[in-house]
Parts: sequence; structure tokens; C-alpha cells
Amino acid sequence: MTRTLIKLGGIVISSQETYDGPSYILINDDGNIEQVGFGDYPGDARATAIVDRRHAVAIPGLVNSHGHAAMTLLRGIGDDLPLKAWLNDRVLPTEEKLTSDAVYWGTLLAAWEMIGSGTTCFTDMYMFMHDAAKAVSESGMRAVLSWGMVGFDEQGQERAIRNSREFVGRWHGGADGRITTTLGPHAPYTCPPDFLRRIAELSGELRVPVQIHLSETRVEVENSMRDWGMSPIAHVADCGLLDGPVLAAHCVHVSPEDIDLMAAKGVRVAHNPQSNLKLASGIAPIVAMHEAGLTIGLGTDGAASNNNLDMLEELRLAATLHKGVLQQATAIPAPVAFQMATEDSAKAVFLPPGHGTLRTGSSADLVLLDRRSPHFIPSHSLLSNIVYAAGEGDVLDVYVQGVPVLQNKECTTIDTERVTYEVNRIKDQLVG
Amino acid sequence: MTRTLIKLGGIVISSQETYDGPSYILINDDGNIEQVGFGDYPGDARATAIVDRRHAVAIPGLVNSHGHAAMTLLRGIGDDLPLKAWLNDRVLPTEEKLTSDAVYWGTLLAAWEMIGSGTTCFTDMYMFMHDAAKAVSESGMRAVLSWGMVGFDEQGQERAIRNSREFVGRWHGGADGRITTTLGPHAPYTCPPDFLRRIAELSGELRVPVQIHLSETRVEVENSMRDWGMSPIAHVADCGLLDGPVLAAHCVHVSPEDIDLMAAKGVRVAHNPQSNLKLASGIAPIVAMHEAGLTIGLGTDGAASNNNLDMLEELRLAATLHKGVLQQATAIPAPVAFQMATEDSAKAVFLPPGHGTLRTGSSADLVLLDRRSPHFIPSHSLLSNIVYAAGEGDVLDVYVQGVPVLQNKECTTIDTERVTYEVNRIKDQLVG
Repeated sequence: MTRTLIKLGGIVISSQETYDGPSYILINDDGNIEQVGFGDYPGDARATAIVDRRHAVAIPGLVNSHGHAAMTLLRGIGDDLPLKAWLNDRVLPTEEKLTSDAVYWGTLLAAWEMIGSGTTCFTDMYMFMHDAAKAVSESGMRAVLSWGMVGFDEQGQERAIRNSREFVGRWHGGADGRITTTLGPHAPYTCPPDFLRRIAELSGELRVPVQIHLSETRVEVENSMRDWGMSPIAHVADCGLLDGPVLAAHCVHVSPEDIDLMAAKGVRVAHNPQSNLKLASGIAPIVAMHEAGLTIGLGTDGAASNNNLDMLEELRLAATLHKGVLQQATAIPAPVAFQMATEDSAKAVFLPPGHGTLRTGSSADLVLLDRRSPHFIPSHSLLSNIVYAAGEGDVLDVYVQGVPVLQNKECTTIDTERVTYEVNRIKDQLVG
Repeated sequence: MTRTLIKLGGIVISSQETYDGPSYILINDDGNIEQVGFGDYPGDARATAIVDRRHAVAIPGLVNSHGHAAMTLLRGIGDDLPLKAWLNDRVLPTEEKLTSDAVYWGTLLAAWEMIGSGTTCFTDMYMFMHDAAKAVSESGMRAVLSWGMVGFDEQGQERAIRNSREFVGRWHGGADGRITTTLGPHAPYTCPPDFLRRIAELSGELRVPVQIHLSETRVEVENSMRDWGMSPIAHVADCGLLDGPVLAAHCVHVSPEDIDLMAAKGVRVAHNPQSNLKLASGIAPIVAMHEAGLTIGLGTDGAASNNNLDMLEELRLAATLHKGVLQQATAIPAPVAFQMATEDSAKAVFLPPGHGTLRTGSSADLVLLDRRSPHFIPSHSLLSNIVYAAGEGDVLDVYVQGVPVLQNKECTTIDTERVTYEVNRIKDQLVG
């Protein structure tokens, strides 16, 4: 690997720093950003690979802060159904047939789709996670992985803890540091209080954070009030789970008291607006959570509930949905939405500072968008073009840790024809 | 022009008729669909141009039922602002500088963007419409055009009526029948009652329908109640405007009584969910209007309020938004949303029956989507892949009236580099 000089037509370093014009990024041997500059590169370009993308704009790679990658295999298996029928009649019976082979290929399919739409890092909470991690490792992506934990009895809980302990030991810091891990208790309604307490302890012992689904649906909150006399947020806090670092997915039905508690505990939120709409869960009070100072990332959720993994879509939806719901045109302005999809998502999934930006010294996780697309014509504001107009069709190149994983719209790390073949084979097994 | 045989990997004839597998479409000399079939074409393929797209799915061309095409020039000129500031401080001062030259190039930019994202027909209500019609004619698209009418005084009203009368006379049925026209009174708050009455009469005299903005914002409704003692819908009905064929854009703030009145009068609706969110207008009660039997099409609105012209996005938003708002997962299922974006949009903009479908005898206005995209893998339901996963990046080819206007993602009718150059020149004039 050598230094790489990418010549550009514009750079979004972060939501607060954009440059619209000739510019460049220099990536060093370690895959980090050595220099970002405007105009021509003034240094010595010898012994440097030069990539001419003067028709492109560089942005930080998008970070998908919630999902279940291999659920791509279930894309479209149950639409337009009430949540209970979707889950019990379609998703769960199909998931019972999943194998390690299926999860491997389903995760590669997810990686292919995410790379192609400008995502460089994603979180996952699922099963057969060694195979998911293998797929991540091969795809070149960055990922924050957890083995989904569900445990209604002692045996199930022991197995879940054994799986997670082993998974964290084997994969935390793996794939040249591209893989980190968390614990992944599924939800308070699938993890009883004692189990949540053990998970909180394990999180401290292994020094890895926790990700969990919280307050996704109205029914979940009603059941929590009935069973525990408090909201899901208050209940998991009561179990000690919020005393360590926690990423909470969804948080659709949270009260002002829940939000205060989350702020006090530093809980991070993964906002999945399209999944919440499609599954009819509702609309999370993101403006209130943002005003309370919570770190909010964006996510797609799994492809069975979305049904794609397109973060540019989530970015646009986050920037428009809350304006409409609150009838307040200034809600979640473009820079805030962009920051949620990049820097704040990176914080939400526990990546170190610098991730989700193109600042000097950061890992070169970046995406080049084609400015020749009509979405960029004219350009009164580059960030506006990206947040309110761009689409996955504009993604030209993607780098993770300085390594190209998409070049001129072609995956360089994944054999997409093979993935297609294998996924169709697995589909026949799942529904056959 | 000769007959064209397109070999396909699947066909969506309409929301009710899909075929997932080897199939074909035969287009005759007149640009109409002569035959749609499954399996191999059984006839004589000699003297027929054969297009091999066995990796693609054909769908009816999307119909954009509301917009202002040349507002592409204002893309991103005023985001995250309250409606009044957006309109008075950004949009109107810039529109005052528009020229016929600007509208011509802005409309071509819109046509390029719409073709590239699978739209074959759009409506327009703007100024310098002869130039817009010229751009439509050259682009090969189908369009339903109107000269926007605003008139606070006698002189302004006379000018508006003269413009519209001349425009309808010159362009109705133009460009080989691809262009039809309507009258385009802007809104009840820019067209006083007597003017609306004259427009209703003119619609009958010229035998062209009317399109108008109605009940877009809460303030509009409040002002109508204050000024006329009734809602905008009831007020324009009172002026006789709903006695002829009318397409009403937005209808965000309509009461059950408004909906009953619209149903009784056969008013068509253009639903623009993303524009309504972004401008903070609110969320139209589409499920109630659909249950009342109204014909509802989908639209993007202008690029200053969206900020793109991507109908696949509107389709997905229409299919997901109302589920979330109503917390009802069965609201606007995939076939209903698909029908709104195609057949019902075609009805809404007054195209004859058959438009918005791929039925035998219909005009060959069609779009080929790339099934090799991960959005189509796996495919448990073709319509689900299209409605809930596909993106503009999947659009390969577009035909209008049997003529290819996009081939392998390249525009064949528009010099996109020239459009880029001219739009950037015009941008400098507008903001200079």
C-alpha cells in the first residue's frame, strides 16, 4: 500500500466544514488522512498513487448505527402486515431455518448493498456472528458487531453469555481493527431483569458497550408499565444496564422523563425513521432528544423491515420527517441531519473521535459522490445537494481505512455474482 | 422506426398483474404495446429490433402528478426556513429574474433528472411555458403543462387568461400528442373569486381541465375561513371551479367535509409527501381520501421544495409514511402505492385509460430496472422489491411512446453536458 492522492471537486470535512471547489485528500500508508487541502496539492506527489476525481465530492463514509445485516435474506418476505403477524408468521419461522452459511452470504449481500450506497461502517446484532464477522472482514467494511442475546431460562441465558463472551474475545479489534464488538441483549421483553443485570456486569468485565432495542412500539411500553410499573427505559436503568455505555435502538415511544434519564446516563440513540414508519411503530421524538443533548445516530434496521440499507434515504427522511410532523421548517436542518448520519452515528456506535469526519488524522473512511449528477446541478449549497437531493446512484467510490472497496461503482472486495447465486440458493431453502 | 422486441426478466403490467420470470414486450411502429408475453416470443422476430434486457424488470413509466419543472434552477436556494421566509426572501426574488432562456434550460435539467429516475410523464405549472413546452418536445417526455395564473387586478387577470388561451391553442396535443395542457390557477389566495369563475368558464370553453394548489398549509385554511367563511375546497367549489375536471395539489389540511365534497365532485389529488414534510406543511390524510374513493396521484413538487424529482422516493414515502403516522402497518400497501405512482397518477393528470400500465394497446411509456441490483436480491415479491427497496440507481432504460430516451443510463435526447453548462451560467445570473 502506498500513499494515495485523490483530486476532488469538493470536500465535506464535517457538517460544519465544507469546501466547494478544487481540493484534495492525501491518504497515508496507514490508511489515515494525512492532509486535506483546497486547490492543488502543493507537496511532492512522486511515489504517490493519484486518483483523479475532480468531478466528485468527498464526504465522510456514512455510519449505519442499527441493523441486522443478514436479514437481507428476508427482504420483502412480509410487507404490509401488523407487527405481530410480520414477526410471528414470517420473520421468526424463516429465521429458524437460518444457518451459519446463510448468515455469511446474507451479510456479504448487506455489505455489497451498503458499500454501493456510501456506508463504510455498520452495526449488527444477529446470530452465527462468527460468520458475519468473517463476511465483514472479507468485505473491507468497518463494523460494530454483537451476538444477539435472548434468554428466558437459565440454559438460554448461559448459552447467550457464552456466545457473547467467546465472540468478543475472538473478534474485538479484529480485521486490522475494523471490527469492534458490543454485547447485544435483544430487548427488555426478551431478557428478564436478572439476565439484564448479568449483561451489565459482563459489559464492565469485558469492557465492551451494550446495544439493545428500547421502546420501539407502543405495546412494548404498555407491557412494561403493566409488568414492571415503569417504562422500558426506566426498567433497564433499574437493572443497572444504563450505568455503562449503551446504544439504544428506536426509542420511538419515550416520555420526557425517559429522555431526561437517557441524557443523565449518556445513552446513545439509533434513529431508524423508515423502519419505524414501515412497521407502523410510530415516529421518534428526535427533536426533543436532540435538544436534550443526546447523541443520535441514524440507522436502517434490517432489510426485512425497511427494505433496503440505503443511508442516504435515512438521512433525507430524518431531515424532512420531523419538519412535517412538527410543522416546523427549521427542525433538523441539513447540517444536523448530516452530522447524525456521520460523526454522531460514529459516536453512537462507540468509534473513537475523528470517525465520521475527514479531518486530518482520521481514518480514511470516505465516499465520493458524482457531482455530474443532476442532483448536484445547480449547487447553491453543497450540503443541501447531499442531504436533500443526492441518491445512491451518485456513489462512485468508497474507501475504508484508505483501501478502495468500491471503484467507479464496482465492488472490489465482493464477488457480487457469487453472492447473488448463493443468496438465491439459500432463498430456495428458506421458503422451499 | 421499426417494431421493437424487448426481452425481459420480469414485467409489472400494473399493480395487479406482475410476472417474475422470462418475458417480453413487443412495441409497434406507433409506439404502442402490441404484445406482452411470458416466456419466449412465439412470433416472427424478423424485421424487428431486439433489445436484450433479460436482467431487467419492466414497469410502467412513473407519472409525476405535480411540480414546477424549471424550479430545478432554485434547487437548494432556501432550505430549513419557515415557508414565508422561503417564499418571500428566497424563491420570489429569484423567480423575478427568470427569463424564457432560464425556463428552457431549467426544464431540460428537470427532464434529464426525471428520465434518469424512471419518470416518463410530468405536470408543470410555471411561467414562460412556450419554452418549457419546447424543452419537453425535445426531451421526448410526455407532459401535462399549464401556464401558472395569478391575478389580483383586472390587468393581471387579462394577461393570465391571454397567456393560457394562447398556450392551450398552440400546445394542446403537441409533440406528437405527448403534450397536453390544462389551465393552472395558482391557488385561491392568488386568484380572487371572480377570476376563479372566469377560469372555470374558460376551462369549459377550451375543453381543458384545471390544476390548482389547494389546502397546502394550515395558514391557508385559516385565512380562507377568515376571508370566505369556508375552507379552500368549499370556496373554490362555491366559485364553480370543481364543476369541471380538476387536479388539486397537496390537500394536506382537508376536513372530512372537504373530502366528501371532493369525492362528490370527482376532484383528483396530487399527493406530494416529501415536499409537504420539507416545507413543514404537514401530512395529507391520504388513507381517508383513498377510502373515500378519490383518485390520488403522486408528485415531487418543484426541486426548490423537495429537492429532487425522484418519484421512486415519493413512492416509497407514500407507502411508509402513512403506516407510521396512523400506526397501522396495513395502510397504503405496496400495490396501492405503486398504482398511485403509475395508473392513478396518469388518471389524475387526465391521461386516457391505459396510461400508467403496460397493458396491450397502451402507449409504450416504460422503465427497465436492473434486477442485478442488491435491491432485487433476493426477490420474495417483485412489487415489494420495487416499492420498498429499489432506487434511481436501478433505472437502466426509459421509453416514451416507444422511443428510447434513456439507454443504459445515458440520456439519448438531452445533451447533459450542455445543460450543465447553461444551468451554471444561469445560476450565476440568478444569484449574482
